[in-house]
Amino acid sequence: MLTTVTREDVLSAAGRIAGQVLRTPVLEISPGLWLKLELLQHSGSFKVRGAFNRILSAGEPPGSGVIAASGGNHGLAVAHAARALGVRAEIFVPEVTSPVKVAGLSALGAHVTQTGAIYADAADAAAKRAAESGALSVHAYDQAEVIAGQGTTGLELMEQTGGVDTVLVAVGGGGFAAGITLGTATSTPGSPGGPRIVAVEPERIPTLNAALKAGEPVQVQVGGVGADALGASRLGGLAYEILSGPRVESVLVPDAAIVSARRTLWERHRLAAEHAGAAAYAALLSGAYRPAPGERVAVVVCGSNTDPATLTTG
Amino acid sequence: MLTTVTREDVLSAAGRIAGQVLRTPVLEISPGLWLKLELLQHSGSFKVRGAFNRILSAGEPPGSGVIAASGGNHGLAVAHAARALGVRAEIFVPEVTSPVKVAGLSALGAHVTQTGAIYADAADAAAKRAAESGALSVHAYDQAEVIAGQGTTGLELMEQTGGVDTVLVAVGGGGFAAGITLGTATSTPGSPGGPRIVAVEPERIPTLNAALKAGEPVQVQVGGVGADALGASRLGGLAYEILSGPRVESVLVPDAAIVSARRTLWERHRLAAEHAGAAAYAALLSGAYRPAPGERVAVVVCGSNTDPATLTTG
Repeated sequence: MLTTVTREDVLSAAGRIAGQVLRTPVLEISPGLWLKLELLQHSGSFKVRGAFNRILSAGEPPGSGVIAASGGNHGLAVAHAARALGVRAEIFVPEVTSPVKVAGLSALGAHVTQTGAIYADAADAAAKRAAESGALSVHAYDQAEVIAGQGTTGLELMEQTGGVDTVLVAVGGGGFAAGITLGTATSTPGSPGGPRIVAVEPERIPTLNAALKAGEPVQVQVGGVGADALGASRLGGLAYEILSGPRVESVLVPDAAIVSARRTLWERHRLAAEHAGAAAYAALLSGAYRPAPGERVAVVVCGSNTDPATLTTG
Repeated sequence: MLTTVTREDVLSAAGRIAGQVLRTPVLEISPGLWLKLELLQHSGSFKVRGAFNRILSAGEPPGSGVIAASGGNHGLAVAHAARALGVRAEIFVPEVTSPVKVAGLSALGAHVTQTGAIYADAADAAAKRAAESGALSVHAYDQAEVIAGQGTTGLELMEQTGGVDTVLVAVGGGGFAAGITLGTATSTPGSPGGPRIVAVEPERIPTLNAALKAGEPVQVQVGGVGADALGASRLGGLAYEILSGPRVESVLVPDAAIVSARRTLWERHRLAAEHAGAAAYAALLSGAYRPAPGERVAVVVCGSNTDPATLTTG
């Protein structure tokens, strides 16, 4: 396993996962402002990019298949990737996971184990099981191959827009934002060239913001509307190395701004984003991040695993 | 007013409406199969293209503004375009139109008049009013400037895909399919070069299919899930001239196939299409149209004015 991750890894990932993931389109909603429609990705979020790259990087996957802990987007993504590759998938979720989510994972062919009161318990059980079975573990964010896979989103958006000055992206465990920071870099390793990365978090889940203040990843409280998809309670270590760099700016948004942005994405643009998927756009609409005149901006809309009935009510 | 419409008119329209409409993206969902995401267009459908082109072609619009009859996508589009251009809009709808739709039109600043038992009555009243007031009438499909505007969708998709062999598009009054036939043409006027146009209609609203059999537009019964957006009871005369040409193939799909395709667009691709917007894709999924191996196909997903709560139930 890689213990660090570079732009070269993102470029390699792009070749490895081509044909397995969608090249999601960008939509220029006003001159110089693009939405990267990653919510249209297979399984409804960017997470399949990292899942495919992790599994395909392992060469021939073990007969015991792959294993992950997640009742959310990561679980769906690993189940999707495993099915596409003909690999067995085991997904561990806590006992509180809704029957709908368990059914969704099972429909993708995954073997679902419900265990433990909270996510951390399920993750511990998954790790123990992987050690016994030899299954390939796919982490939700703190693995180099996963970060490299997510970073292919950044490569694409730079090509599709012809380059931007700023990218707004939501942060949970940090794998996606870290990957995009690498994928959008325009210069040689060690030099900070590339667009500004505005790393957006809900005020109630400030994993990156707290880490930057503390000088290292720290445990934070998790709550609010983004918790189901941005609910990591601590930033990943690999992500911290990248997101503590000079191109990254940490921005917090209140839940009300996320709810409002999600409504706007539906009403104005007919995009069915989940709350976490609307967080980056919320930073722009709420003024938490204000571009300069003429600044070219891309906003990543990153997930759509939501009940569409709530688009007009929640 | 133009009494015929050509590819040159589509090219002129593209220049005229640039900056007012979105260049909607395409999504390649499998090699050689693109969805043209026109459902993400302003006002939730392609109709704004024609509305902008009609209004902007008139030069300085009359002080009495613009007028249209429609409680659906066309009404929303005319209201949107008028507001964007700072022009007064009057929209006539029948008395049965739901309060939600009337409120939607009013929210766009339109002056809404509810009159008559059925759509035809409202349309008659709008025509009478236009004759009195001098307002510019914007027809839902049977006007050259409207067809030319809709055709810009075809120009875009040819550029975005690098060219396709076949385009699947839904037909109501025929303005959109006619415009796309012109917009995708690749050769000189009079020569039938360009992709095959598969003109898809619900079995229960066969305006084109019946017209081709009769040798002229004829009145048809209107019913089924697509009626709110594909509910013209007779093909437009201008559209007939174009859609009776050699590149066009008429295909019918049952309502069940439309319902199923709409579900698939949501579940697999997270696109919130209305039933009419899913009709073209239904022809592909149901096998009503079967591409040859290697055939490059674009499917236009043309509208999203739907209650998202019905995406998982209807």
